[in-house]
Formats: sequence, C-alpha cells, structure tokens
Amino acid sequence: MSGEEGARPAAGEPRAFVARDPGYEQRVRDSLARQGFLTLCGATLDALSPGHVTLSARHNHGLTQQHGFFHGGLIATLADTAAGCAALSMMRPDVGVLSVEFKLNFLAPARGERLVAHGHVIRPGRTLTVCRADVEVIDGDRITDVATALLTMMSVDGFQD
Amino acid sequence: MSGEEGARPAAGEPRAFVARDPGYEQRVRDSLARQGFLTLCGATLDALSPGHVTLSARHNHGLTQQHGFFHGGLIATLADTAAGCAALSMMRPDVGVLSVEFKLNFLAPARGERLVAHGHVIRPGRTLTVCRADVEVIDGDRITDVATALLTMMSVDGFQD
Amino acid sequence: MSGEEGARPAAGEPRAFVARDPGYEQRVRDSLARQGFLTLCGATLDALSPGHVTLSARHNHGLTQQHGFFHGGLIATLADTAAGCAALSMMRPDVGVLSVEFKLNFLAPARGERLVAHGHVIRPGRTLTVCRADVEVIDGDRITDVATALLTMMSVDGFQD
Amino acid sequence: MSGEEGARPAAGEPRAFVARDPGYEQRVRDSLARQGFLTLCGATLDALSPGHVTLSARHNHGLTQQHGFFHGGLIATLADTAAGCAALSMMRPDVGVLSVEFKLNFLAPARGERLVAHGHVIRPGRTLTVCRADVEVIDGDRITDVATALLTMMSVDGFQD
Repeated sequence: MSGEEGARPAAGEPRAFVARDPGYEQRVRDSLARQGFLTLCGATLDALSPGHVTLSARHNHGLTQQHGFFHGGLIATLADTAAGCAALSMMRPDVGVLSVEFKLNFLAPARGERLVAHGHVIRPGRTLTVCRADVEVIDGDRITDVATALLTMMSVDGFQD
Repeated sequence: MSGEEGARPAAGEPRAFVARDPGYEQRVRDSLARQGFLTLCGATLDALSPGHVTLSARHNHGLTQQHGFFHGGLIATLADTAAGCAALSMMRPDVGVLSVEFKLNFLAPARGERLVAHGHVIRPGRTLTVCRADVEVIDGDRITDVATALLTMMSVDGFQD
Repeated sequence: MSGEEGARPAAGEPRAFVARDPGYEQRVRDSLARQGFLTLCGATLDALSPGHVTLSARHNHGLTQQHGFFHGGLIATLADTAAGCAALSMMRPDVGVLSVEFKLNFLAPARGERLVAHGHVIRPGRTLTVCRADVEVIDGDRITDVATALLTMMSVDGFQD
Repeated sequence: MSGEEGARPAAGEPRAFVARDPGYEQRVRDSLARQGFLTLCGATLDALSPGHVTLSARHNHGLTQQHGFFHGGLIATLADTAAGCAALSMMRPDVGVLSVEFKLNFLAPARGERLVAHGHVIRPGRTLTVCRADVEVIDGDRITDVATALLTMMSVDGFQD
C-alpha cells in the first residue's frame, strides 16, 4: 500500500499515486503498441498518470453489436486494458502485469460516437492490484455511463510487459 | 425454469433444453451476422443447439496482446457472445436479449492456434437467464482451458435481436 | 434513470436521488427487522437516505474467521444487504427487491472493532438496479477499506419486501 | 498445474486431485473449528477430499432473510468457505489461504430445510487458485440449485491457517 498520498478518499474511489518506475509512461505506451488487438480496434491512449489510464475508440461498423451500438466485447476490451495499464503504471520496472479476473456491469446501450474507458487503481499491492474501470459513451455533447467494472491484476516477476 | 428435460445434473452444469422458437437457429445466425465486431474478429459459429453455442477464432496478429497470445478482450468477447447466443436460442421469438453483466476468471495464457468459447445456459428464466462460458485454446492436439465465466442475460419484450 | 438530481458525477460514483415511496424509511427498517440472519449477526442500520444505506456490526468472536478478523461471509452479508436496502429505498411501494448477483473484492484483512458497509445505488432502473458497496473496518481512529463490491438487484412486482 | 490426474474434463468442471499435504484433512477441520462465524451459523463439514469440500447448515430463524428463506449472506458465507477450504486442502503445509474475490449468481429462492455448498478447485496454482462453488437447498426429497459462484483464492507463505 506504499506510493499513496493525500487524504483518504471514500472506499473504492480513485486516488492519486506516485509511480515507482520513472519510465512508466513509455512502458505503458510500448505495451499498448504491441497489442495487435488494440490496433485492430483502433483504440488510442487519451490520458495517463500513475494508477490512471484512459483509452478510447471511435465508432465504426467494425466495432458494433447487432443494433449498431458499440459491442460489449469492445467495452470489456477497453475496460480490461485501461485497468491493466493503470496497474502497470504503478509497478516496478522488472515485473509484468497479467489480468487475473474481472466483472463488468452494463449500465446502458453504448450508442454514440466515441467509447471512453477510464481505468483506475483502487488498491495497489505487491502481488495483486485491484482496479476499477468506468466506461462511457460520448454522443455530441452528451456523456452516458455504459459500464462499470472491478478487476484484479497480478504482477509477475521476471516477465517483461 | 420450463423447457428443461432429463435427469438433474450437478449444480451449474450444462443441461439439455428444448427451444421455444422453432426458428432459433436462423435467429442466432442472423444476430451474429449483424455484429460487425465479430466479423472484425473473424469469429465463426462452430456449434449450436438450444441453450448451447460454440464460437471460435483463428490466431492472427490482429487478435493478440503484448506477448502474441490471444487478447483478454477477445476472450471476453467470445465468452459474452457465445453465452448471449445460448440465451437467445432459448427465448420466445418476440423478445431480444441484452447482456446484464459478466464475470470472467483467466486460467492460463491463451497461446495457440484457435480460441474456442462454449456458452451454456445454466438457469433459464422469464426475465433473466444465467449462463456460463468456458474458453479454451487449441494448439496442435493440445487443449488448454484459458477462462471461465458466469454471465447474466436479460430478455427484453418487443426488442428484435 | 428517473429520480436523479444534481450534476453528473463520475461514472460509478454515488449520486443523490429522490425516493418514489414517501414511506421508504419505514419500509427499509421493516425489511431489516424481518431478516433473522441480521439479528444473529448483530447488524444495525446506521444511515439511510434514498439510494444509500449504511449497516454495521461490532466485533465479537461469533463474527470471526480463523485469525480473529471479521469473516468474509459477514463482509458479503453486510455488503449485499446494504446494497439491497439502498435499491429498495428507491423502489415503488408495490414491488419487492431480490439480489440477482454480486462480485466482491477483498482489499485488506478486516481487523478492528466495527465493520461498516455502505450500499449505494449507481444505476436505478425499472427492472434492474446496479449497486456498489464499500466495506471498511474501524479500529480506534483508523479506518481501513476491506472490500468493494458491484451488485445487481431486481424489482419484483406484487412481491412484498 | 501439478497435482492433477485423470482425463481432461470439460473446462471449469471439478477434477480429481492429489493433496500435497498428507495432513490436509485435519488442517481443514482445524481451520473450520477456529472460525467463530461458522459456529454461529451452525455450519458443518459434510464431505472433504483434495480440492473438494462440502459444507451445510440446517434451517432456523437465525439464518433467514425477510421471507423466511436462507439469507443470501449465508449462501455467500458457505460458498466462500467451502471454496477456501477446497483450495486449502490442495496447498503445501507451510502456506495459508486468503480469499481474493468472489462472484456469485443467485439462481432460485433458498427455501428448504438444509443449505448445502460444494466448493471445488478448478485451477490450482502456485499463488492463485481458482475455485467454483455450487449451492443447493434440500427440501424433503427435492434439491434446488440456489447459487453458483466463481472464486479466487491466494496462498500466502509463512501464514498459518
């Protein structure tokens, strides 16, 4: 639980953190660039700070479910990846990160122009890091929450990410 | 809990079901064909019976995470879609299906040639249907379990799928 | 999504709500009083407003796991009940509430004098209501987050709670 | 993934295992006996083999929710404990077990005389063990599935259970 700073937020709320790896930003960018599935999905990195990562994708037919909205699988992909990168940004340079498990609740149909996933570390740990991800869709000037997720990430020694 | 037949399996085990919609097979195929994200992922329908659906995808760089294995987001996509189609195959012709939530545990790295997701209805209901999905990877003659998921699907009146 | 007020909080954050049932407070108290398991656990209602409920229990040997900390099953009990009551407090007088599913991450050992669970509605709906619960332990003047949960509740017509 | 034997079952299915600790049975019994909450709930150990544990409780008012059925919190308690003991039964003598997270779907109201939870290891690992729990209620000669859960357990070095 080291690396925390500032007053105690409510349980489960995003916190401000200090990274242990000064090169954390390049490390997250490199990990994203090597993930062919993110390129296929057109996902981009929109924001990055220690313990917090935002990814997004623009609407096109290749990202849709049967009604033309963003597909639930893409929502899960961005949630899992944003949370995994948030966890990675907090880790020592010599460990990699693996997704252990996640759970996601869909809140509304993902109808709009851009799908945005915010991944947050809520409990950093030596082996396991608990994260949360909130996914929203932007349609003109309207923002709608479409999913929220709880995720567990694991640091793995001697495993380069 | 209607539509069930045969002896009681262990809790949570796949069961044999009878479909309420004689056209269930075409209905599932049509739903899959309209999902642009599945086309992008190259997912195919491998097996279909009432309450049970198998989808798969062949390995290529566009489906990978940073180590070249199948991406966790794709694993979630196939699990969610196979389970959703399994639920849809049990529903009356005049309702559609929505994913409410799902939870997925990763069991091993998804290293191999083909990713296969089996979706099963484990508790059909008038409004909510509970499903399970098991995902495996095939590499030559070796099969490895890579994920298992529990999912909740909802039937929606007057909503065409 | 009716009944909301105020500015848009971050996705998944607790919101302020207006109850549809003016007698919501008595209704939640009555539901709690009829749950024999809560009496057995010594759980008390500490705070109640529309969409938000806080329950707690004081430490004693009957509530412990093998190291003398609060048992994970009690943590789940308070999380599920606080969230269920938060959902109930938002519902029309003629419907009852059922837990559909939940997922809970343990964040730290629950070592302390009092276990406190805050249940919040994060997405109210006609049929399904998505909730979140945050559980903390109080030990002297120290508060530690011990668990966070995502939960789905269902309103059931003609079912008195 | 050592300690497995026999043919490959379907993904997520219970398997037969060999224990690494010849004293696993006493160890599980000792852990259960020290959990005050289980005594309060009247939970008993009904079956135990490596990777598989069954617990149950008899109906009484102290275990109920508002309609007189077994409380969801008790269902979660037995599921979590049965799975945790199943994981413990597979571990080396010098490590303890902690619950990391669990997810549970309720399948039917738990109306009956006896609540029975079967915990199974589905993927043993050096650090993390993935389990499944199936909970049923027995009422006369009728057995009803009431919940199914996926759980993650963690082994902790130098931590006695």
